[in-house]
Amino acid sequence: MSVLKLIIEYDGTHFYGWQRQSNKRSVQGDLERVLTKIFKSTIEIDGAGRTDSGVHALGQVATFKAPIKIPLSNLKIALNNFLNDDVRIVDIQEADEDFHARYSATGKTYTYKIYNCVERNVFKANNSYHYPYKLNDQLMIEATKFLIGTHNFESFKAAGSSAQNPIRTIHNITFKRNHNELEFEFTGDGFLYKMVRILMAFLLEIGNERILLSRVQEILENPTREFTSKVAPAMGLYLKEVYYEKP
Amino acid sequence: MSVLKLIIEYDGTHFYGWQRQSNKRSVQGDLERVLTKIFKSTIEIDGAGRTDSGVHALGQVATFKAPIKIPLSNLKIALNNFLNDDVRIVDIQEADEDFHARYSATGKTYTYKIYNCVERNVFKANNSYHYPYKLNDQLMIEATKFLIGTHNFESFKAAGSSAQNPIRTIHNITFKRNHNELEFEFTGDGFLYKMVRILMAFLLEIGNERILLSRVQEILENPTREFTSKVAPAMGLYLKEVYYEKP
Repeated sequence: MSVLKLIIEYDGTHFYGWQRQSNKRSVQGDLERVLTKIFKSTIEIDGAGRTDSGVHALGQVATFKAPIKIPLSNLKIALNNFLNDDVRIVDIQEADEDFHARYSATGKTYTYKIYNCVERNVFKANNSYHYPYKLNDQLMIEATKFLIGTHNFESFKAAGSSAQNPIRTIHNITFKRNHNELEFEFTGDGFLYKMVRILMAFLLEIGNERILLSRVQEILENPTREFTSKVAPAMGLYLKEVYYEKP
Repeated sequence: MSVLKLIIEYDGTHFYGWQRQSNKRSVQGDLERVLTKIFKSTIEIDGAGRTDSGVHALGQVATFKAPIKIPLSNLKIALNNFLNDDVRIVDIQEADEDFHARYSATGKTYTYKIYNCVERNVFKANNSYHYPYKLNDQLMIEATKFLIGTHNFESFKAAGSSAQNPIRTIHNITFKRNHNELEFEFTGDGFLYKMVRILMAFLLEIGNERILLSRVQEILENPTREFTSKVAPAMGLYLKEVYYEKP
């Protein structure tokens, strides 16, 4: 038996998230069904990030154990032939015996896409968040500078999430604007449940001048959900890359 | 009663085409339902192009008769609020009494998008045609030069279509490549049923060097479906603009 590592791209629109569910379509469920068919024995996979319903991936990682009977390039072709149009195996590699998609991960990059225009765009409805209000880009960029680093991110953790150490390190946040299209990238050692979407909604409130820039430092030092009750919607979020080396 | 002209954008993925159908979702059906609700009386609309299932529009035009009771800018906002995310009113204007979206049209531009890469891209599955084979762009460009002009396009007419005069004028065909993304634009005085998709499939056969460039001139002069039996799929096609002036 070998440990196999998959790099996976998916459009999350028609999935109820990554995680296997009975009677609902999930990315894990689709992959396990196809792998089980190909290997003719039950295959279970572990994903690096359990993306929510509607969240996309450019570089999700998953591992599973199976005997290698055909060249991996052929296995990739077979998998892609069986999978639906909205999920694709980008790469498949053999990994070390003790490699695990989630536990071995040392960091992740998430992208968040925003369509910033008064009018919506029908071709962006499922792959960007339509934000029709004015944004002061410079204020958002200033805010990201306070967020980068090792902090207690308790203020940016979804209410119902299980107890987790809220200390995380954000290595970098980048921002790009191309006319109406905005793209944020968050790279860190790990993110709390819904943390990227809560950070994103908070940055938009700062950009729209509804929350003062000075609040960033304040709520990192004295955690409160008072200014972070909003969660940016799933369709703008992409799991871009998972890292396994020390950064 | 005034004649109102709508400019409409839609993602055709989840529609069974433009035309009203019982029990199936259509763009015409969605628009008529919302207009009837707003005007509190049955509204029927005429579209400039009856796009097929899966075909998109950036500038479809439709007309209907109704009394103007509120400013058109407010009517547009109301319509867009009631419509689903995949259809949007771009503009609404008052037109001349004898204006008709289809009969007054003097020309149209269609765009066809191709994703030319061995591997598919999950985010392009519904909005571009995935063509994984090699293409010689220069051959396709040469072929378009023969197609421009006034010709008998019998060879490029779908088999089951009702009798139509097959003489049409193509004013221009443009081609752009941006890495793996190709875009063709066809502008003409009108197109036969499925003509753009048949032209597109034919151009791809020429680009892939499966059909000789010399065939273009041949089948324009002596119509035959021998080399034009393929129809490029709907998801790559966009009705971009409808013209009402003499070109």
